[in-house]
Amino acid sequence: MQTIHFKRGQSYLFRLPPGEDLVVGLYRVCREQNIACGVFQVHGAVRNATVGHMDQESGQVRRRVLDGEHDLVQCTGNVSSEGDSFSVHAYAVLSDREGRVAAGKLLEAEVFVAEVFCQELRGRVPVRTQDPETGLSLWPPA
Amino acid sequence: MQTIHFKRGQSYLFRLPPGEDLVVGLYRVCREQNIACGVFQVHGAVRNATVGHMDQESGQVRRRVLDGEHDLVQCTGNVSSEGDSFSVHAYAVLSDREGRVAAGKLLEAEVFVAEVFCQELRGRVPVRTQDPETGLSLWPPA
Amino acid sequence: MQTIHFKRGQSYLFRLPPGEDLVVGLYRVCREQNIACGVFQVHGAVRNATVGHMDQESGQVRRRVLDGEHDLVQCTGNVSSEGDSFSVHAYAVLSDREGRVAAGKLLEAEVFVAEVFCQELRGRVPVRTQDPETGLSLWPPA
Repeated sequence: MQTIHFKRGQSYLFRLPPGEDLVVGLYRVCREQNIACGVFQVHGAVRNATVGHMDQESGQVRRRVLDGEHDLVQCTGNVSSEGDSFSVHAYAVLSDREGRVAAGKLLEAEVFVAEVFCQELRGRVPVRTQDPETGLSLWPPA
Repeated sequence: MQTIHFKRGQSYLFRLPPGEDLVVGLYRVCREQNIACGVFQVHGAVRNATVGHMDQESGQVRRRVLDGEHDLVQCTGNVSSEGDSFSVHAYAVLSDREGRVAAGKLLEAEVFVAEVFCQELRGRVPVRTQDPETGLSLWPPA
Repeated sequence: MQTIHFKRGQSYLFRLPPGEDLVVGLYRVCREQNIACGVFQVHGAVRNATVGHMDQESGQVRRRVLDGEHDLVQCTGNVSSEGDSFSVHAYAVLSDREGRVAAGKLLEAEVFVAEVFCQELRGRVPVRTQDPETGLSLWPPA
């Protein structure tokens, strides 16, 4: 088995500014703080979120737009290497004001409030490459 | 940008006693253990939970009571400074026995079982103050 | 109060192989890496998941089979001692391709993709024993 253990780097707590796209904002802060690998959690509220659902047969992601305001009740994900750079993968559970719950890969969301905890990890950063079986951009299997 | 990175303090694993309010219990343990800042996750089951949904226009939180028993499937949040003390913000996804899912800010919940992991963070603790734009009690923006 | 704080051990990032049961796979990697205590989060997609809902009166878990493909939008849990060995408890929020959301204790799930972050904790590992009040296998109360 390849090496899969890491040293913890720094921990981060911050708030993204309103109006910024959530995934873009996470990417921006990682770049500014030189976070090449890590895990994060976000809480807050967003507008006009788009979530993705995976079609396991085709490897395609079905996009679904969630109109209006949603609470970002759970949102976690990771930062790792991909190509010449790094990528942010975020997954979210959202609720509207009537209590209707949605969940999926978070593709886009305009920040209303976004409080972020990020734990940097230092070590041999896993590299996403296209998996021949699924067509998805995945870490190597352990 | 202000300093947003932290040193990790201690890690905690514990179980809250049955009957205690979950948010009150988290606050109590943080006070007893001198945890001024951190992030946590909780799993278990609760009774008579109340969740909140944010109205982004008014900054008000709509309270919604979830009658009866619910599994606490996901519950995460953070501890940080507010006023002269600190505050606990928790967000939860719950399911009843029929599989109906609810999600929102967790305002109240009577513990049936609550297993908690808390990661203390040490550094310049973010201070919640009333945000003039939203009316919410927020950390300063990064 | 008993000692409830821990030192962090190593951090792990890895991907479970397709086709393996998710909970079995987490258990296997913990055994291979000598992780006796920790917390984890998983993202990915699974097939033929079974979730459990707790009946608080009886302490029994109602099993519910989720047919077909689901995104594993949130999945967190912990590793701790139980009997002569250790046990893995996982809790998940899942979504199907139509956006229908399910949530519960994750009892079984065939991995399609499973990216795992695990944070090992070192210290006096909490031991699950049968709680006389609920009949559940729980850590001692704090």
